[in-house]
Amino acid sequence: MAKHYLMTPGPTPVPEEIRNEMAKPMIHHRTKEYQAIFKDATEGLKKIFKTSGDLFTFTSSGTGAMEASIVNVLSPGDKIIVVRGGKFGERFGDIAKAYGVEVVPVDVEWGDAPKPEVIRETLEKNPDIKCVYTTLCETSTATVYDIKAIGEVVKNTNALFIVDVISGLGADRFENDAWGVDIAICGSQKGLMIPPGLAFCTVSQKAWKAVETSKLPKFYFNFKKYKKSYDSTDTPFTSAITLMIGLKKAVEAINAKGIDNVIAEHEKMAEAFRQACKAMGLSVFSKHPSSAVTGINAPAGINADDIIKLLKTEFEVTFAGGQDTLKGKIFRGAHMGGIDIEHIIESIKALEQALIKLGYKFKAGSGVETAKKILGV
Amino acid sequence: MAKHYLMTPGPTPVPEEIRNEMAKPMIHHRTKEYQAIFKDATEGLKKIFKTSGDLFTFTSSGTGAMEASIVNVLSPGDKIIVVRGGKFGERFGDIAKAYGVEVVPVDVEWGDAPKPEVIRETLEKNPDIKCVYTTLCETSTATVYDIKAIGEVVKNTNALFIVDVISGLGADRFENDAWGVDIAICGSQKGLMIPPGLAFCTVSQKAWKAVETSKLPKFYFNFKKYKKSYDSTDTPFTSAITLMIGLKKAVEAINAKGIDNVIAEHEKMAEAFRQACKAMGLSVFSKHPSSAVTGINAPAGINADDIIKLLKTEFEVTFAGGQDTLKGKIFRGAHMGGIDIEHIIESIKALEQALIKLGYKFKAGSGVETAKKILGV
Repeated sequence: MAKHYLMTPGPTPVPEEIRNEMAKPMIHHRTKEYQAIFKDATEGLKKIFKTSGDLFTFTSSGTGAMEASIVNVLSPGDKIIVVRGGKFGERFGDIAKAYGVEVVPVDVEWGDAPKPEVIRETLEKNPDIKCVYTTLCETSTATVYDIKAIGEVVKNTNALFIVDVISGLGADRFENDAWGVDIAICGSQKGLMIPPGLAFCTVSQKAWKAVETSKLPKFYFNFKKYKKSYDSTDTPFTSAITLMIGLKKAVEAINAKGIDNVIAEHEKMAEAFRQACKAMGLSVFSKHPSSAVTGINAPAGINADDIIKLLKTEFEVTFAGGQDTLKGKIFRGAHMGGIDIEHIIESIKALEQALIKLGYKFKAGSGVETAKKILGV
Repeated sequence: MAKHYLMTPGPTPVPEEIRNEMAKPMIHHRTKEYQAIFKDATEGLKKIFKTSGDLFTFTSSGTGAMEASIVNVLSPGDKIIVVRGGKFGERFGDIAKAYGVEVVPVDVEWGDAPKPEVIRETLEKNPDIKCVYTTLCETSTATVYDIKAIGEVVKNTNALFIVDVISGLGADRFENDAWGVDIAICGSQKGLMIPPGLAFCTVSQKAWKAVETSKLPKFYFNFKKYKKSYDSTDTPFTSAITLMIGLKKAVEAINAKGIDNVIAEHEKMAEAFRQACKAMGLSVFSKHPSSAVTGINAPAGINADDIIKLLKTEFEVTFAGGQDTLKGKIFRGAHMGGIDIEHIIESIKALEQALIKLGYKFKAGSGVETAKKILGV
């Protein structure tokens, strides 16, 4: 079977040594052996988030942790800012509304990033805002937001700063504590390069104060239960044992290189991918492209989904399509997690061949040549 | 490395062919390939539940699905019956209280099962009861409840009948539709013999009517989102891909034998385990022992946790201990999921050796001989 190149922004390929580790005979979770794995994984993950605060792992998709970041710190009728510049920013608003929380939207054109001064003005106009929700990398538009600058705005107010780093962590620069983030939310199948099924929340001291007064109902996602269990190296509910074993292995691999070096590698891959596409005459969709995933505009007269279909069926490469209003207009190639230099080169090679087949005119070989040059291979 | 015998009531051993299937290279979840896996797993699982209604899969522990069974059908101030005869029955009450739902407890002595006539009387006294929550196998006491008889009582009322079959499914007899169950809740790491991380809810037509009027807030566990996605063979949030791949394989293995035959095998293993213990002069804790897990009283003067510790450290067998008030008093050996005849024989063999070492007097060899005779090996 030919090797398949999975270039989707989650799940990413899972390295073979991690898959093998997860395939070992099952162990029980209430044992010293498992406790050591759970603790090592959690403490190692804190280094990747750059936090010395609490970090909890839920068995859920990233959306479960997004819900946790709402139900643990808010009460019915509370007011929050939600930055909406893509599908995932909108989801925060949807969850909030389901729980009777009032949303003050800061709408951003898809592909653009929010301006910190707009957040500042919105906070000044609404002094009763309890939290500001946004994303590090808005996956649907492949756009990175300036979390550091927004953090500077929020940290001097009473509001909490809550950031979805699900697709960005490990590829886009992120510093939980230094940037004043109160809750960061992540999932397992992106930069952390394990299968989907785990989700994470960091919790700052400022966030804990909000937890004390929060009145929204919760049980499965209740931070207090996770905190109480973590203090005895345990989880309140049965842990997703194999995924946690994979997480420990992945976190060790990332920390062995150092998170800053890992990010630098992904930044280089993203740059190579973007420049290769530009060399082929294509354009990048986002005004602030992420290093985790790149959105490329389909050439005039070609539907992006036709490119994706051809790559998948004939060239063993899976890209992701545009979502909602971007469907058919862009295709997205990721650079996060288990995606390596070979993936970048091979996917550009396949993209060239697919575009030729679809009748798009460009200098054949220009993409691969550019990518190789930037990657130094 | 010596083979280790995991005898805990979840996780159970995961068969090697299932572990290998889950260790294959990652695939994306929004593909025809994954859709086929997801659909086959779900439709196959319905045969194991014996339901033709809806069945949804959540990425969560079993507790997440327990929460789903509350937030989807109830409103604040609603009144429910919760059978409390062990740790897991009590959990339903805890979740209900967290959501402002009033609990009318039907308390049962630990190790005993609820009497259907008590449920009937409680329903008659409280005609405004919206749901009756109970368990098939109360794992903490290793006791099976007569769900068929309780179902007869509930089905002629307006109340929904909601059953936690987390540890019982696949070992204790269960018929979702024929027994009038409106929501059955299960997890992946017990009779379904895959790692923990998936949880399931069946939903009857009667339950759907309650969903329409339910006012409790929900998002991640919202049945309607799962129903809408399932109609296009999709999940509302990123699926735990590898676990679903394992589930498909496990469900195929169970259905190839037939669920009734699989249950008969586990019943025989449970019988062999119980009779072996009795031959050694030990006694069974429960008045209505489950076929999924057996609780054995520690002999006078010996702490059950010492037996468990010795078995784990010196004999490569992991039993589970008693929980809460039963801690130190009982040990539990499971017969569900990936636990096979070899596990039963080897664990009894090890139990004999451990008890001899701890000074307990009995006819050495009597346990193993009895187990072998019943198992026909």
